[in-house]
Amino acid sequence: MKRVLFALTAIALCCVVRAEDFTRFVDPMIGADNGGYVFPGATVPYGMVKLGPDCGRLTENAGWQKGAPVVGFSHTHLNGSGGGCKYGNILMMPTVGDLDVADYASPYSRENAQVGLFGIHLDRYDVDVRLSASRHAGFHEYTFPETDKANVLIDLGKFLASIEIQEFVGSEVTVLSDTEVQGYSRVRGGWNYSEAYTVYFYAKFDTPFESFSTWREGKTYPGVAAQSDRNTPCGACLTFNTKGRRTIRVKVGISYMGCNRARENAAEIVSWDIEDVRKGAVAQWNEILSQVALEGGSEDARKIFYSSFYRVFMQPTDFRGENPKWITDEPYYGDYHAIWDTFRATHPMINLFRPTRGAEMVQSLVEIGEFDKYIPDARSSHWSGRTQGGSNADMLIADAFVKGLKGVDYERALKGMLKSATVPPGNDERQYGRGGLPDYNTLGYVSTAYERGCSRTFEYSANDYAIATVARGLGHEDIYQEYASKSHNWENLWNPNIESMGFKGFCWPRNQDGSWLSDPSFTVFSSGSFPHQFYETFSWELSFYVPHDMKRLIEKMGGRESFTRRLDTYFNESFPAETRNQLLFYTKLVGMCQISNEPCFLTPSLYAYVGEPYKTAAIVRRILREMYTSQRDGVPGNDDSGSMGAWYAFHTLGFYPNPGQDVYLISSPVFPKATLTFEDGKQLVITARNASEKNIYIKSCKLNGKPLNRCWLRHGEIIGGGTLEFEMTSKPTSWATEGLLPPSLSD
Amino acid sequence: MKRVLFALTAIALCCVVRAEDFTRFVDPMIGADNGGYVFPGATVPYGMVKLGPDCGRLTENAGWQKGAPVVGFSHTHLNGSGGGCKYGNILMMPTVGDLDVADYASPYSRENAQVGLFGIHLDRYDVDVRLSASRHAGFHEYTFPETDKANVLIDLGKFLASIEIQEFVGSEVTVLSDTEVQGYSRVRGGWNYSEAYTVYFYAKFDTPFESFSTWREGKTYPGVAAQSDRNTPCGACLTFNTKGRRTIRVKVGISYMGCNRARENAAEIVSWDIEDVRKGAVAQWNEILSQVALEGGSEDARKIFYSSFYRVFMQPTDFRGENPKWITDEPYYGDYHAIWDTFRATHPMINLFRPTRGAEMVQSLVEIGEFDKYIPDARSSHWSGRTQGGSNADMLIADAFVKGLKGVDYERALKGMLKSATVPPGNDERQYGRGGLPDYNTLGYVSTAYERGCSRTFEYSANDYAIATVARGLGHEDIYQEYASKSHNWENLWNPNIESMGFKGFCWPRNQDGSWLSDPSFTVFSSGSFPHQFYETFSWELSFYVPHDMKRLIEKMGGRESFTRRLDTYFNESFPAETRNQLLFYTKLVGMCQISNEPCFLTPSLYAYVGEPYKTAAIVRRILREMYTSQRDGVPGNDDSGSMGAWYAFHTLGFYPNPGQDVYLISSPVFPKATLTFEDGKQLVITARNASEKNIYIKSCKLNGKPLNRCWLRHGEIIGGGTLEFEMTSKPTSWATEGLLPPSLSD
Repeated sequence: MKRVLFALTAIALCCVVRAEDFTRFVDPMIGADNGGYVFPGATVPYGMVKLGPDCGRLTENAGWQKGAPVVGFSHTHLNGSGGGCKYGNILMMPTVGDLDVADYASPYSRENAQVGLFGIHLDRYDVDVRLSASRHAGFHEYTFPETDKANVLIDLGKFLASIEIQEFVGSEVTVLSDTEVQGYSRVRGGWNYSEAYTVYFYAKFDTPFESFSTWREGKTYPGVAAQSDRNTPCGACLTFNTKGRRTIRVKVGISYMGCNRARENAAEIVSWDIEDVRKGAVAQWNEILSQVALEGGSEDARKIFYSSFYRVFMQPTDFRGENPKWITDEPYYGDYHAIWDTFRATHPMINLFRPTRGAEMVQSLVEIGEFDKYIPDARSSHWSGRTQGGSNADMLIADAFVKGLKGVDYERALKGMLKSATVPPGNDERQYGRGGLPDYNTLGYVSTAYERGCSRTFEYSANDYAIATVARGLGHEDIYQEYASKSHNWENLWNPNIESMGFKGFCWPRNQDGSWLSDPSFTVFSSGSFPHQFYETFSWELSFYVPHDMKRLIEKMGGRESFTRRLDTYFNESFPAETRNQLLFYTKLVGMCQISNEPCFLTPSLYAYVGEPYKTAAIVRRILREMYTSQRDGVPGNDDSGSMGAWYAFHTLGFYPNPGQDVYLISSPVFPKATLTFEDGKQLVITARNASEKNIYIKSCKLNGKPLNRCWLRHGEIIGGGTLEFEMTSKPTSWATEGLLPPSLSD
Repeated sequence: MKRVLFALTAIALCCVVRAEDFTRFVDPMIGADNGGYVFPGATVPYGMVKLGPDCGRLTENAGWQKGAPVVGFSHTHLNGSGGGCKYGNILMMPTVGDLDVADYASPYSRENAQVGLFGIHLDRYDVDVRLSASRHAGFHEYTFPETDKANVLIDLGKFLASIEIQEFVGSEVTVLSDTEVQGYSRVRGGWNYSEAYTVYFYAKFDTPFESFSTWREGKTYPGVAAQSDRNTPCGACLTFNTKGRRTIRVKVGISYMGCNRARENAAEIVSWDIEDVRKGAVAQWNEILSQVALEGGSEDARKIFYSSFYRVFMQPTDFRGENPKWITDEPYYGDYHAIWDTFRATHPMINLFRPTRGAEMVQSLVEIGEFDKYIPDARSSHWSGRTQGGSNADMLIADAFVKGLKGVDYERALKGMLKSATVPPGNDERQYGRGGLPDYNTLGYVSTAYERGCSRTFEYSANDYAIATVARGLGHEDIYQEYASKSHNWENLWNPNIESMGFKGFCWPRNQDGSWLSDPSFTVFSSGSFPHQFYETFSWELSFYVPHDMKRLIEKMGGRESFTRRLDTYFNESFPAETRNQLLFYTKLVGMCQISNEPCFLTPSLYAYVGEPYKTAAIVRRILREMYTSQRDGVPGNDDSGSMGAWYAFHTLGFYPNPGQDVYLISSPVFPKATLTFEDGKQLVITARNASEKNIYIKSCKLNGKPLNRCWLRHGEIIGGGTLEFEMTSKPTSWATEGLLPPSLSD
């Protein structure tokens, strides 16, 4: 029933807003270079197939690597993930001449990425490649030179592999006829240290090949139709004569179930014209992209906005009907890499524009927790792992709950949240659940006996508030009380004696016996990865992360004035010279704010909690201007499943969520006019009179014609539709400085 | 290199001992009825394919169910497992007439089980079935009546499922030609609560079928060659005309990798004559069975012995080349159900007669621990789980170590043992590792805060001694000291104030605060399963389980005399009337000894530790006589992967191992002469002059011609070959009563 309704909604949306093609504003290559790891290939929203190029030594997270030769085109990718690679399965490559299984990569030119289409020229072979994709299938079009040795290779031993490496497990291939090949590739490991997963394929060519070989472990077998799995890499080479027709097309169905299912998936592409396939993808993307119609502003800003907004909806993957682990009637999504990244902006944006999808994702996570031990922080290739900090799926659940998303069984969700909060995960404690839980639940903090003690304690506190929120909403007052109380636990790591740059009181590692860490080499700037006390952050930064109780944090930091100065210092001062050699993971800095990574995502908006919204406007607009561009290196950090994109898109519209709470903090609208269309057809028209690159400060605001004197919004005030009218100016104003502050636990 | 040597060894053995067909003494049906769950079908030693009948509502562990209609013949089974079912995949069934997917089971008659062959008549269809198997393939021979509707069904939605149920996940089928079908069935759950596993098959018929149907979710599709996986059960019906030739044969390759590999596996059966296949299996079994040549004694005893000995080598499964989870050059075994059962007798027997295999199994477990988090206690379908008590793979490793098995990397093994002993497994703590470890490693016992506290503490203590043993042998004196010390931990649950039947001092549950459990309903006879403090045992029984420090236990129990009386009481008295309503899992009792289950396995031999071997002789012979028969219900409990068989076989030969120690405790040889041939060709000739059902007591013993005045043997004294000459008599004697006692930690 839900699905029927959703379909109707989609149709309704079409009628309202399908006039314009918004995909022309999207450049899929923005963020593909320089560590953004944006996936530049062809895909549909939440698409299981992400068909794109894999380059060089296959060590780049999304496959693409500027300047490195193209090895081939594989069907599975992530967008923007950092850390070790994942996917890159079922790689195909057109070549010309004799088969050389060991070396067939080609330099490239004329790359051309559009929504639903990726084109490139392979210089070594003079082959033009165009790729498109449907939900579960890829479409390849190869235009060869005239030759009787035009080959298409299917290499089942290739996949992406870097640090936290994916390892080969096995593969099979079978040439079924002179137009059909099927098989699988099995791989384990990668960023989430997953068990083995199997990607099956079925390839159907539009042209009969004249001959074929298969290979196994580097040895070629001409005319041998099948290779079996001896934990060995194998593949097939299909050879065509292109002296007549030069273009070869192939549809490739992908499945995590089996080859027959892959064959069915291939059939979801009906046409043999790649333009038809591209149009199908474009239509799906326009349904989403058209939900924001921008007027005025620069072409460049528009391009960055839509490219950012586009990336928000690439993941998680909708795996409905492709669950090889259990039977379900519920939605089934995967590819969370990781929720630690995406709970902050990506999912709140999905919840705002696509609440049906957002609810499906949450419900799927709840069910995954029931079948797979814990609601995960990260998951791909149908395996959960690994947890970066807290049990941040809690934030997703609370976000869905406070925003009234329908279709989630919140009682079951609460059960899953409580499991994370009460049952230690064991083993290396990175796969799922809350590591260090015995400490947290007895001492009230995760001590230095465990890794990531500070990050975990601060994040668990926020997660506990998420539990409290849902529990209260469901009428479980006892659980609410318990978890509201536990959400104060961050205070147990507040060391009032740590001083830095004129400020006193910071988050600090604490030993199991209650004493503070006293390591002279450890400073408020110390940072690290999994084994560190501060995970991809440092004390100065993490100390701002009490999203559910800013009031109490401000008290701890010495009150409004001191808090404001501390934020100012964080955004405007550089790291002290003597700390420069401390490990910092990311180098895109605004002051000491590592905007290239997620822990600071909310911080620019925190001036709202002391009634100084103009300072948020100033810093946000500075970041948008200085850190994002329309170039291929235009994303400041790993896009992290659209996280960088979502941050950009929210702030461009002029507000940013505090996830898990019914609060959006107003920043500074960029475009003079933005029309937001929600899933039910309601529209919010945001105008920002005089908005420009100079006029970034809000002078006044009216919500539905009435003055709004606070610098934050409720979810209902946005999705209810109507008008939000800003007047912008070039100097800081006193707008909303005396208004009602956003809510805090300690109110 | 190792494999080459093994092959040579096997050849050497053939030459020496292949004169006689020992398989004629084996009745695979012994233990098939009445809860023995012995697998009666066709298999080779450690065979991956175990092809046999599945009956009734498919709720019996090994498939067979006396009197219930035969549903079909599936290719994967366990031998003797209790608890929830596992396997029963790729079920085939011959039928006659129109296809009825919902009901095709048939009453049976004329069942005939031999080594390597299972025959049965299906009364409903008047079809004769004969089955045989190679390592990875099954061979079916169906003799139909004359009909044009002779069907062979391949039902991919069928599998064994009872409590701790296996659940269907998905399946596919493809009819490749008029003699070939392939596909897979995917199932999850079962006793070890495993993730989904996939069994692929390829079936090749000797006769073309005239027509076929496939089905999915109960709907039949005549002539449709393929069904894809929508998380739906599917199957195929192949229809033959048997008005001419009435016999249809089919080879079915099974694989955990893929269909092409299954096809290769099918090809490992070359002949289309089932007799050839059977002979292949018989030859493999004779290599093992011929290692014990018995002379004298009764036909019945011989039959029980060889049937028991046969079952020892059915499992674990040799999955070499069939690892869908990682690539390895090391051996790969599975189907441990569970080591808690098999470390006591099954594996020591494998280590004695087949040390090359024994070492491969241990090395495989070590590698599994490296890839799959912990060295498991139980594992099947390539998934670890679940742990019944301690980390008893430790006992296997120590057993291999003290017996000098080559081919195990004992340093890596020790690392795995130490992981189990130091890293809590988390979640439900039943999958792997040591549950309750935080208690054990801080308090020195697993408290009542955890389940199975008493069983775990006693078993962990023995496991810690296994660690100490290996550590000392490898020269890690510090680890030895630490774990030798921890192996005293059982003493922390020794409550000196518990009294029962005139004895004082018993194992007793203890709370986290150090106080003893004081629950008036809890007695020394209380017993339960996973959630209980005593896992499938009770305090009276478990209190004897200190295999590594009997000296200290005897002290705790008040010295030799009191200890002996306590053993006497255990074997001769009944449970007090008022405790009869306490939960006891197994009803085959000798006094209070539940010989139907493993926790008491060593207890009859414990008289050795007080120099009263004639009492061991008496009780062991009584159990052999009263509890084992040559009938189909002739095994006292679940055979548990040959555990009941191994217990019988050891004691028939006259000794029984204390696993993980270089100690075999002498009981009472049953046959006048037994020639044991070891892997290297050395022979130990055991004679027992005057041995009979009356003459069960040892009057004297000579080892290699020299008097042996102790009632235990070293491993080297057995495998070194030579003679072991007993003289038997009908009355208890003083033989060895003053001899050197077996070693104890506290010596």
